[in-house]
Amino acid sequence: MNERRRDVRTGEWVTFSTVRQDRTFLPPADHCPLCPTTDPAAPTEIPRADFQIAVFENRFPPLVADPSEPSVPRIATAPVEAAVGAAEVVVYSPDHTRPLGAMGIPRIQRVIDVWADRYAALALREEIDYVMIFENRGVEIGVTLHHPHGQIYGFPEIPPRPALELRTAFAHLERTERCVWCDVTAMERADGVRIVAENGSFVAFVPFAARFPYEVHVVSRRHASSLLDITTPERAALADVLERLLTGYDRLFGFPMPYVMAMHQAPTADGVPLAGSHFHMEYLPPYRAADRLKYLAGAELGAGAFVNDTAPEATAGALRAAIAAP
Amino acid sequence: MNERRRDVRTGEWVTFSTVRQDRTFLPPADHCPLCPTTDPAAPTEIPRADFQIAVFENRFPPLVADPSEPSVPRIATAPVEAAVGAAEVVVYSPDHTRPLGAMGIPRIQRVIDVWADRYAALALREEIDYVMIFENRGVEIGVTLHHPHGQIYGFPEIPPRPALELRTAFAHLERTERCVWCDVTAMERADGVRIVAENGSFVAFVPFAARFPYEVHVVSRRHASSLLDITTPERAALADVLERLLTGYDRLFGFPMPYVMAMHQAPTADGVPLAGSHFHMEYLPPYRAADRLKYLAGAELGAGAFVNDTAPEATAGALRAAIAAP
Repeated sequence: MNERRRDVRTGEWVTFSTVRQDRTFLPPADHCPLCPTTDPAAPTEIPRADFQIAVFENRFPPLVADPSEPSVPRIATAPVEAAVGAAEVVVYSPDHTRPLGAMGIPRIQRVIDVWADRYAALALREEIDYVMIFENRGVEIGVTLHHPHGQIYGFPEIPPRPALELRTAFAHLERTERCVWCDVTAMERADGVRIVAENGSFVAFVPFAARFPYEVHVVSRRHASSLLDITTPERAALADVLERLLTGYDRLFGFPMPYVMAMHQAPTADGVPLAGSHFHMEYLPPYRAADRLKYLAGAELGAGAFVNDTAPEATAGALRAAIAAP
Repeated sequence: MNERRRDVRTGEWVTFSTVRQDRTFLPPADHCPLCPTTDPAAPTEIPRADFQIAVFENRFPPLVADPSEPSVPRIATAPVEAAVGAAEVVVYSPDHTRPLGAMGIPRIQRVIDVWADRYAALALREEIDYVMIFENRGVEIGVTLHHPHGQIYGFPEIPPRPALELRTAFAHLERTERCVWCDVTAMERADGVRIVAENGSFVAFVPFAARFPYEVHVVSRRHASSLLDITTPERAALADVLERLLTGYDRLFGFPMPYVMAMHQAPTADGVPLAGSHFHMEYLPPYRAADRLKYLAGAELGAGAFVNDTAPEATAGALRAAIAAP
């Protein structure tokens, strides 16, 4: 079963993919499917003895290029569609243990280039309206493979969270003739207390109304709607901020910080104006202290309203200190 | 620090409460703060040797009746408000180990009566626009006290998820002159394959587009907008469905099923028409199999789009079998 169903009581689409129930789950390091193939009799997902960065289709995809027909008939109160779209895996390097933040700026920049290439390639597919590049890191948020990698989903419509951002941005644009992300980034830079890392092109800050204690947004200082608008020197600047942020995360509690990273870029649907999209990456780590996770429970899942037990000014200060530590 | 901040890039309010960072965390059973007080020298939260059901204000509240002023000045790009509202704890019984589903129908019905009373009392407070009754159960979703209990938050505005339901319901009402929850409940009953438990007044089903594998919605069969519209015989019927559902959950995998339960009722803001609200309870268990959790990661947190690895028809069948088991 692989299909998308809509709940008409909320308007939300949910993607169903039962093949995922049997996906590879935390294999031992010597059976890692994301490492290079060293023994041709035991091929990994990557049939090469070496590589720099690998991109391939997810073996357990929720969204596919050529989906089967839905398992149930369409009726008005139970809309169902084929699960059309894309699901790709981006392996950052052949090194099983070295995370993105420890690869060095030139190699981080090459990953950024690959992200931009895949965004451009998936944008060309007519059935894909939104490309989301993301990374799930750490068993605490459910990662099933430890080898440093990210993922890309190509959605057949603009999903709820980017859609909310776009609606809010368009309303702000209409009222003020300015981009709300530009305005908020200017406010954060003027205030300064929540800034975590910065250079001439990018800034990383704990948002004023952070949902997660150590949430950080990495935002382009000038208005750029996607990686395709980000120049080569700017990509080096982004790699610099990412290196500092990710190093700080891993120093903060003395263990590799788990997180969800989500990159928000312009939708790839026809006719969506670019003025409403401002390139940014959201890092959402689940820890509220070194020995305490932040769980999504009644408030978050039942009401859709986050409760945060920490002050963004304090967590930003702790992250700045971790980045500055020798 | 205790305040509400709004992210102007999404319109969302986040509640900050740093006192919660130090809340009681999984105390040993003989130091349970929700048990009756047996030694006056070591009082629990409930200063009585016995009780039936106890309700009191949360000692570590995100929302309070008399909040302090915000810690930062209000500016247009960083809106902040006092964290006004309510946070209450509902202890289901003095028994430290007996869950709600094992208390028997008459006692479950008394808990329902208490929920109705607290909804009515909090609705009278002008500053509270939405009352959400919920339960967080199990360490897997972050519970910090094992003694069976639920919670109530009184929000100063209608939070995002109920607001989304209301918007969708009003749009459906305008188009069809019918309640979308009534329509979907009728569809589920006609189809039958996702029904888990049912009686003359209430029905429990895995929704057609369930976000969580074992998600169950308990819905009033007739249009009732809150517990205040639910008659005494109907409350007994609700207790019956809850008893069967919760017993089935705990039998399914052979351990107490963790879940988030959220009750959605009519907002208590002035002037919101009741026709758009249909009383229901949503049960969201985090397991996708006996040994696998469903995590919210890139798709859910980054895109706001759920991926479900199971077929609702299959999980409903498994729950029905667990309920029917001797």
